[in-house]
Amino acid sequence: MAQSWENPRIEQKPESPDRYAGAGVNVEAGNEAVARYRELLGPLRRADQLEGIGGFAGLFRLPGDPGRALVASTDGVGTKVLIAAELRRYGQVGADLVNHCVNDILVCSAAPLFFLDYLAVGVLDPAVAAKIVAGCADACRQHDCALLGGETAEMPGIYQPAHFDLAGTIVGIVSIDALPKPASIEAGDAILGLPAVGLHTNGYALARSLIPPQEWEAPFGNATYADALLAEHPSYYRQVRAIQAVAQVKAMAHITGGGLRENVARTLPDNVRAVFEQQRWSVPPIIQELVRRGGLGEEERYRVFNMGIGYTLVVPLTDAAAATQAVPAAKVIGWIENRTHDEPSVVIHPAREG
Amino acid sequence: MAQSWENPRIEQKPESPDRYAGAGVNVEAGNEAVARYRELLGPLRRADQLEGIGGFAGLFRLPGDPGRALVASTDGVGTKVLIAAELRRYGQVGADLVNHCVNDILVCSAAPLFFLDYLAVGVLDPAVAAKIVAGCADACRQHDCALLGGETAEMPGIYQPAHFDLAGTIVGIVSIDALPKPASIEAGDAILGLPAVGLHTNGYALARSLIPPQEWEAPFGNATYADALLAEHPSYYRQVRAIQAVAQVKAMAHITGGGLRENVARTLPDNVRAVFEQQRWSVPPIIQELVRRGGLGEEERYRVFNMGIGYTLVVPLTDAAAATQAVPAAKVIGWIENRTHDEPSVVIHPAREG
Repeated sequence: MAQSWENPRIEQKPESPDRYAGAGVNVEAGNEAVARYRELLGPLRRADQLEGIGGFAGLFRLPGDPGRALVASTDGVGTKVLIAAELRRYGQVGADLVNHCVNDILVCSAAPLFFLDYLAVGVLDPAVAAKIVAGCADACRQHDCALLGGETAEMPGIYQPAHFDLAGTIVGIVSIDALPKPASIEAGDAILGLPAVGLHTNGYALARSLIPPQEWEAPFGNATYADALLAEHPSYYRQVRAIQAVAQVKAMAHITGGGLRENVARTLPDNVRAVFEQQRWSVPPIIQELVRRGGLGEEERYRVFNMGIGYTLVVPLTDAAAATQAVPAAKVIGWIENRTHDEPSVVIHPAREG
Repeated sequence: MAQSWENPRIEQKPESPDRYAGAGVNVEAGNEAVARYRELLGPLRRADQLEGIGGFAGLFRLPGDPGRALVASTDGVGTKVLIAAELRRYGQVGADLVNHCVNDILVCSAAPLFFLDYLAVGVLDPAVAAKIVAGCADACRQHDCALLGGETAEMPGIYQPAHFDLAGTIVGIVSIDALPKPASIEAGDAILGLPAVGLHTNGYALARSLIPPQEWEAPFGNATYADALLAEHPSYYRQVRAIQAVAQVKAMAHITGGGLRENVARTLPDNVRAVFEQQRWSVPPIIQELVRRGGLGEEERYRVFNMGIGYTLVVPLTDAAAATQAVPAAKVIGWIENRTHDEPSVVIHPAREG
């Protein structure tokens, strides 16, 4: 599990046996690490640092311009790189990474300025490295974002010869008065969801344990398991800008590790809760298949996978129609209610069976 | 070998058998990858991108202020992480990384603003992760640099359970009129060197092949091989600022992968060459030991290791005395001569034997 520690948070201990832990990913350890980072970094805060929103990115006041902030985020693509490496399909991981980073700073409404990649390999094959970096470059071009630099490291002994890891850092910019204002969220607001196309960049350790490599090339739906597993993490940049043009967007969340529940909770004030009705959207077939194979309960499936929603936006109910008209893929998937402190801040009503 | 592709460069094919390649690092492949990136990225340049100096970092015009630029660099610490992991000594790799990044943007005379880390592990041990990030935090504090965020990824199947990789991205700022001006370099200028304390973050694949793990805890000098191998990559920030206060600094180089020859060459105009006299400085004992064990020729030892110089500055000869008085560790290690196009741009006269 990839854990952004811009957002120090502690997760509830799950009470059911945990398939994700069985696949080698320890969410508890992740949360403990983040708690330790918080202790470490509290006293280190610089005056130029601004409070972020939900911890998807760090904010730093633009030198010389108190009205704007630089917005930065570092991320990786998780063990999706293992599937790409084993199938020698290198085309989309660069876009997975850039789009993930774009979405992370978009939660602060930031526009990308520049990106730098880190590619580490066991044995450097220049043609493979160029394919991976080309994927980053294409996705940067889509966002008018400079690919400002990077590092390619050949590290025998750390990586298997054919394996690699890919991470990156994006820096964007936002006007401070354009930052979403979660404090303005109130009961009755609508929550819009933008659809996910697959796992994006989360849950791959579990996915690989449930769908072993010998099945990857087998048919699944109209294509193969590999196609479904490697589907590109989309950028929500254009859709979000189109919605912002017609609706007041009060808060947003990028649905990554921790799922709908954790990522939406990060951006809500204490006095409200988000209530989702899962029958309002569809779960991608590959995620349905993984839930079925793993026998994953409601709790775990929503923690490990995005369950079909890649990005959420909170808007006044009166703006919801204009938003869904501007972006037909956007759907009202839930709403905001008042919350008392003993209630969970995110509730998901499962779809009715059958 | 870690290869920053901000600097597209092609290296001469070495004519001697290559110990570094035998240790699993293919410099040729690195250069080919960089050449491919160059092709890929040429048409992608944004108007806000500025020409860097020697490719140690990328420059992006500060939004709203045409007189300043953001300076960004991504780097890793190479397979030094393997020695740290195997000896469970996690304290210094964070500082290795931050200091490396600080030095990379210092070549443009930039001051650090913020840093983000990427830590990827096989099995997440929160105490270990906190030690590594604490090392980053301490080094950031030394430079009044915000540790703005980061990513900790648990990636079973990519990393061995006890292994990890660590990379990071720094963003700094510089006034464009304070950028070093290599075009002003002329014959007769002095080259100052700041001492290296060991391998810093380069040459570890070869070092590990020449000094196997069972020897790491054995005595070496006043300490152990491990102590010498893990010696912290220093930041040259304060020394450089002290020299800049008393001397006109025309160009600088951070001596990383590719050694004195390649890194200094990157920053020189075509019409001059740098001539070094190795008897003017001393080579750290651990590098002497590695050269001896590997039987490394003049060519290879200077390509893989820093050979005792961590950072160089070109100053007018008339400023050299003030500089070495301000920073006694700085030594005049060479000078600038005129160059005709068929001469190499860096010449190193070896120390006399005995």
